[in-house]
Amino acid sequence: MASPAASGEVQPPILPALLLFRRQLDASFRAALGRRYRLLDFFASGEPLPVFLAGAAASPDPPRAAVVVGGGAVRVDAAFLDAIPSLGFVFSTGAGVDHIDLHECARRGVAVANSGTVYSADVADHAVGMLIDVLRRVSAAERFVRRGLWPVQGDYPLGNKLGCKRVGIIGLGNIGSLIAKRLQAFGCVIYYTSRRLRDSVPYKYFPNVHDLASESDVLVVACALNKDTRHIVNKDVLEALGKDGIIINIGRGANVDEMELVQALKEGRIAGAGLDVFENEPKVPAELFSMDNVVMTPHVAVFTSESRSDLRDTTIGNLEAFFSGKPLLTPVLSW
Amino acid sequence: MASPAASGEVQPPILPALLLFRRQLDASFRAALGRRYRLLDFFASGEPLPVFLAGAAASPDPPRAAVVVGGGAVRVDAAFLDAIPSLGFVFSTGAGVDHIDLHECARRGVAVANSGTVYSADVADHAVGMLIDVLRRVSAAERFVRRGLWPVQGDYPLGNKLGCKRVGIIGLGNIGSLIAKRLQAFGCVIYYTSRRLRDSVPYKYFPNVHDLASESDVLVVACALNKDTRHIVNKDVLEALGKDGIIINIGRGANVDEMELVQALKEGRIAGAGLDVFENEPKVPAELFSMDNVVMTPHVAVFTSESRSDLRDTTIGNLEAFFSGKPLLTPVLSW
Repeated sequence: MASPAASGEVQPPILPALLLFRRQLDASFRAALGRRYRLLDFFASGEPLPVFLAGAAASPDPPRAAVVVGGGAVRVDAAFLDAIPSLGFVFSTGAGVDHIDLHECARRGVAVANSGTVYSADVADHAVGMLIDVLRRVSAAERFVRRGLWPVQGDYPLGNKLGCKRVGIIGLGNIGSLIAKRLQAFGCVIYYTSRRLRDSVPYKYFPNVHDLASESDVLVVACALNKDTRHIVNKDVLEALGKDGIIINIGRGANVDEMELVQALKEGRIAGAGLDVFENEPKVPAELFSMDNVVMTPHVAVFTSESRSDLRDTTIGNLEAFFSGKPLLTPVLSW
Repeated sequence: MASPAASGEVQPPILPALLLFRRQLDASFRAALGRRYRLLDFFASGEPLPVFLAGAAASPDPPRAAVVVGGGAVRVDAAFLDAIPSLGFVFSTGAGVDHIDLHECARRGVAVANSGTVYSADVADHAVGMLIDVLRRVSAAERFVRRGLWPVQGDYPLGNKLGCKRVGIIGLGNIGSLIAKRLQAFGCVIYYTSRRLRDSVPYKYFPNVHDLASESDVLVVACALNKDTRHIVNKDVLEALGKDGIIINIGRGANVDEMELVQALKEGRIAGAGLDVFENEPKVPAELFSMDNVVMTPHVAVFTSESRSDLRDTTIGNLEAFFSGKPLLTPVLSW
């Protein structure tokens, strides 16, 4: 029997179209989406973005929804939205939505959802791990052992204690709150700054980052990136944190003025840093490579093998809600 | 005026003698001891141990107390005790007293105290840091970044989640309990084995290490080293832990059969390890140096700059208690 394609018949699309902008998608996640939607996969297409979007918009069933990778590899801006007027919903597989122009989405009535709290625990765990690493010099001591220096040079210098450290958290959202909860178990004193004072938490609130830094031994950047939080850790804040202070950044690279941070580390004006994010990823300032008081990971705080199924459930749950006109599960903008 | 020494007079010792066996002692700690005792410093003497002890025993005011470094650089055994019959008290600057023959001390009525809980929080913090490091591949990802591989090879493989992991703790003493408390804040499930079931803790008890390993994702070695706990993690226990299992050792190197551990790691029969202690320190099995799923630190879990003053207070408090006939602060053996 001839196949439908060979017989020349055009099969009507049964499944709604879905724009997909995510390179790394494990097989079971892709299969789960593929059972529900006709996937228009940007990275598999090999096409430039404008060509890909124009092609999708010109199809008989233009896509109403898009799944966009978190972190900014693809930007959903006015040009993107103009190219696909059929779009009604954008799901970001990240928690941050700085790669999505919410103003332009709002103007067009495009709903936006994000990954919600899927990553929060993983990011919080990684932040605590990096703080212990910087204080107790784990990665540096690791290099010392692997280079065979222990028998040659003897005892490794003492690290610093985590207990009783005053940890100032910038942004007490899901992630910041989980970091606070974990660090309390180590006997840390938790301070925070946030858009507003939270009545429900027992931690001391500071109305601005500068005052928070002045009173803290450690600053943890756990806020979203937007115009108010770009370079929220700048030269003045580093100065206020002081020469015994430590910066942990699991937010976005651009939350910290990286050039000033590198300069402060080089000149010993702060004591150390744990950085999972950088201003120009995957580029990392080469000056950091020789510093033993810096721990650097390649934007991996966000995700573990175990969290993949949570992300799959959250993605599909939001798409199904959108297509059936129900409330989004983890809305950022909804109508 | 002639000095007393120049005038030929012999000055009676005003301060009681104290044997000191600790190489690294910061200046303020040494000064605090020196104000109270006449220090007979083994490592400064440059003498072989028997010569040093014989000299001390022959002095007009032979020492009644000794401060001995933790970890076994000097062993307080029958020969040591025989050489100094005046000895009535040994203070170990470590928590473990496997370098002190308690049976021989007991037989002679020599009291023993240790550092108590001075190090417990630091060790617990380090254990948690190493566990996060192994699961989330922090040190390995660090090497990846420092080698400049991020822009070349792209995303680093996902690590594993800490939350919901079943962590089996071997030895629920001070350190084990603090590890449990910290890991609860990350959402781990805590199991333990110990000499006896503790009524006061909510964690599930296993009567032996093999059963604990069978039910755990992670095994944390947090027990003292003695004849019952030597190689408590052996080939069978590693087998029971299984190929997804992780070992963290912040106890003593000899709590784990290191040869079997290396073999199990090489063959992928367990998933990873975080090791602060080794059987033949400072020697570390060279096979481990090429493994990215192993985190190794040079026996640094025990101590931080901030804990030094706690150790000083505990040492002097115990010595003063012994010399004034009061109860020891942190006794291991007392009379």
